[in-house]
Amino acid sequence: MALSTANSFSPSLSSKHASKQPELYTWFRSPNAIALKSPPLAPASIELKRNGGFVLGQYKVNCRIYASSAAPMMDQTVSKAPTIVEVDLGQRSYPIYIGSGLLDHPDLLQKHVQGKKVLVVTNNTVAPLYLDKVTDALTRGNPNISVENVILPDGENYKNMDTLMKVFDKAIESRLDRRCTFVALGGGVIGDMCGYAAASYLRGVNFIQIPTTVMAQVDSSVGGKTGINHRLGKNLIGAFYQPQCVLVDTDTLNTLPDRELASGLAEVIKYGLIRDAEFFEWQEQNMHKLMARDPRAFAYAIKRSCENKAEVVSLDEKESGLRATLNLGHTFGHAIETGFGYGQWLHGEAVAAGMVMAVDMSYRLGWIDDSIVKRVHNILQQAKLPTAPPDTMTVEMFKSIMAVDKKVADGLLRLILLKGPLGNCVFTGDYDRKALDDTLHAFCKS
Amino acid sequence: MALSTANSFSPSLSSKHASKQPELYTWFRSPNAIALKSPPLAPASIELKRNGGFVLGQYKVNCRIYASSAAPMMDQTVSKAPTIVEVDLGQRSYPIYIGSGLLDHPDLLQKHVQGKKVLVVTNNTVAPLYLDKVTDALTRGNPNISVENVILPDGENYKNMDTLMKVFDKAIESRLDRRCTFVALGGGVIGDMCGYAAASYLRGVNFIQIPTTVMAQVDSSVGGKTGINHRLGKNLIGAFYQPQCVLVDTDTLNTLPDRELASGLAEVIKYGLIRDAEFFEWQEQNMHKLMARDPRAFAYAIKRSCENKAEVVSLDEKESGLRATLNLGHTFGHAIETGFGYGQWLHGEAVAAGMVMAVDMSYRLGWIDDSIVKRVHNILQQAKLPTAPPDTMTVEMFKSIMAVDKKVADGLLRLILLKGPLGNCVFTGDYDRKALDDTLHAFCKS
Repeated sequence: MALSTANSFSPSLSSKHASKQPELYTWFRSPNAIALKSPPLAPASIELKRNGGFVLGQYKVNCRIYASSAAPMMDQTVSKAPTIVEVDLGQRSYPIYIGSGLLDHPDLLQKHVQGKKVLVVTNNTVAPLYLDKVTDALTRGNPNISVENVILPDGENYKNMDTLMKVFDKAIESRLDRRCTFVALGGGVIGDMCGYAAASYLRGVNFIQIPTTVMAQVDSSVGGKTGINHRLGKNLIGAFYQPQCVLVDTDTLNTLPDRELASGLAEVIKYGLIRDAEFFEWQEQNMHKLMARDPRAFAYAIKRSCENKAEVVSLDEKESGLRATLNLGHTFGHAIETGFGYGQWLHGEAVAAGMVMAVDMSYRLGWIDDSIVKRVHNILQQAKLPTAPPDTMTVEMFKSIMAVDKKVADGLLRLILLKGPLGNCVFTGDYDRKALDDTLHAFCKS
Repeated sequence: MALSTANSFSPSLSSKHASKQPELYTWFRSPNAIALKSPPLAPASIELKRNGGFVLGQYKVNCRIYASSAAPMMDQTVSKAPTIVEVDLGQRSYPIYIGSGLLDHPDLLQKHVQGKKVLVVTNNTVAPLYLDKVTDALTRGNPNISVENVILPDGENYKNMDTLMKVFDKAIESRLDRRCTFVALGGGVIGDMCGYAAASYLRGVNFIQIPTTVMAQVDSSVGGKTGINHRLGKNLIGAFYQPQCVLVDTDTLNTLPDRELASGLAEVIKYGLIRDAEFFEWQEQNMHKLMARDPRAFAYAIKRSCENKAEVVSLDEKESGLRATLNLGHTFGHAIETGFGYGQWLHGEAVAAGMVMAVDMSYRLGWIDDSIVKRVHNILQQAKLPTAPPDTMTVEMFKSIMAVDKKVADGLLRLILLKGPLGNCVFTGDYDRKALDDTLHAFCKS
């Protein structure tokens, strides 16, 4: 099959953190370099700043990213003051607040509420745990605000149009107008549905993300991808729509089931693999702390994940190239979720198996050496995540579902594959079809 | 009730065409002025050009509009070459092509198709008339293009989520990817639904509008408002999403029923009332030609309507103020459509009755003199449009439905009302509630 190089995208990503001990005013001048600048008076807070232009495919992207960073965990103390990671999208820029106990600081939330009416969208698992707390944070000292809520059933299998309509019903019955604010309180499913509802209600109202799972805190709440599933494929209906802010209260992880926690770690591992080798190495050394829910380790993992996500989204909001690399393992993973049945596996579980398949294919293509394959297996096993798809998945199921993936362009399936040393990947349709076939057959019984 | 002047918006619109016989290089220097410039070699084509800034509320809008214009009908000849009205929205700018027989020029359509797959969204009334013609225009001399279609039931009562899902089903089953193009072939309902489907499918694909009704050609296909109805209100779910182009083949009006034709004239009349007194006067003199389907009169009415719409949309795409003025009569009208039952009255019929109510209220407020009231009645009667709501509408129905209108802000209903000489309006929540009550009681039996 003739393949066009026009479908190949190789951003030549290098590991962005060149030093474990950032030095004051150290500047890196390569196209992907980031200037690390540590204000002398705040040694635990380091400003990541990227200036200048970056050529992405045919487009020149002007970018400017401000994100607080930190030295690795061992040098850090946990603070109640929020860490702020800024997603730089011009007029649509917004902060991600990360910290312990943030829901006890109403000011942080209230300054992003527009209008007098708020609709909290949550589910029947999260509502008993945090709805009262969030309602209090929205209204304390602010009696003019009225808060409505809609409690949806929990789970990926409810991320559909029928459930979405319940949000619209509630908003209209509550007579919410264009100056209202929607608040997503929950994991990735709630964030995606509430965001899409906010994008569509009255052709767009403000919204705020309060993610309560690792998955949502490190990935899905950041970057404005919203949407719902179709019975034939994941996230096929939706919108790019940015929130006013993302508020990550790390205390909410205290109530998260182990399986949900591990699911989120799949996305944390992904950032290391696609663009941040040093972060991957940190994870290899600290996965036992994450699995033991060490709050300092989690604060660091969330922050560094959000920095990676914010940087990529700022460079390529609408996924014309670079942003697609955040979907390592997701094309295989979405096929598992759709084929095996929404909600059977958690999103991160499917992504973990999908990453193993993408890594296997990269190795078959001769693009990575076998040490990376082993390290990926090892870290996923440490995180108690699957390293193969469910037995019921067949080669034909993968092929037919992957054919409707959003990354198909003019009939050609483009994939994110690793290429080169750890921390480097490509988004491309320019690969040998046999490698894909071999990978599918290696992981499926039929 | 205390009213805030912050909710008042008065753009001080003046009649934009200062001369019936445009002179070469005549410039008007007021903030609302438009420079009329006629190229010497093309006397039937005049370029409307607006340069510089325009202060809209708190925002400074930089605008640049190019639109071809023409002398009034009596001086004009009908040409096969399309008139082009440009909607200037920066990177999202697009042309409106207007002319007779444009569907016989495949190049015009094909140059706006992106990717190899097209989905034509139409209804069971329009499909037998124009689907083959449009499919031919899309594929003639271009064998790489594959065209799918989805034929929806006709009518406002099908403008809902269930019908929208049929578009997604067809798109996914046809394996359309992000490089596909959706084509809306039909009236306002089809355009709104197809546009919203295009905005949401894979988080956004390209689309083209081919409006086949007066309503769609003069109003709904231009400006990127897309959406569906909710049982509790019109257009409450949707997106601002611009097409790649709008192609108005005026020959499609040959098959339009009289009632549909009259419905579209309500929007034509609206432009005259809110911002173009000279156009209103032209309509008073030429309504008999429009009712007799004089093609030259229609070509002019469509073009001048599109110029008005394009100019307003270019200045205020997301309806932060000025654009709301295009909704004269629509808040009352939407209440009629929702309360009386979607599809019972055509949109323009409801808007016509709504305009009479808005004009009545403006007169009660002392903002216009009675000559305007009479002229509005007269022109609507000439166009065989209603001048009062259906008998079954009650004051309470109006009030409860209007409470969920998109123009409500923090509980305050803002309306478009006429104020001053013909061609001037305001968008405001700063009016005496008694006038609204009096108008509702004057037009409802209970």
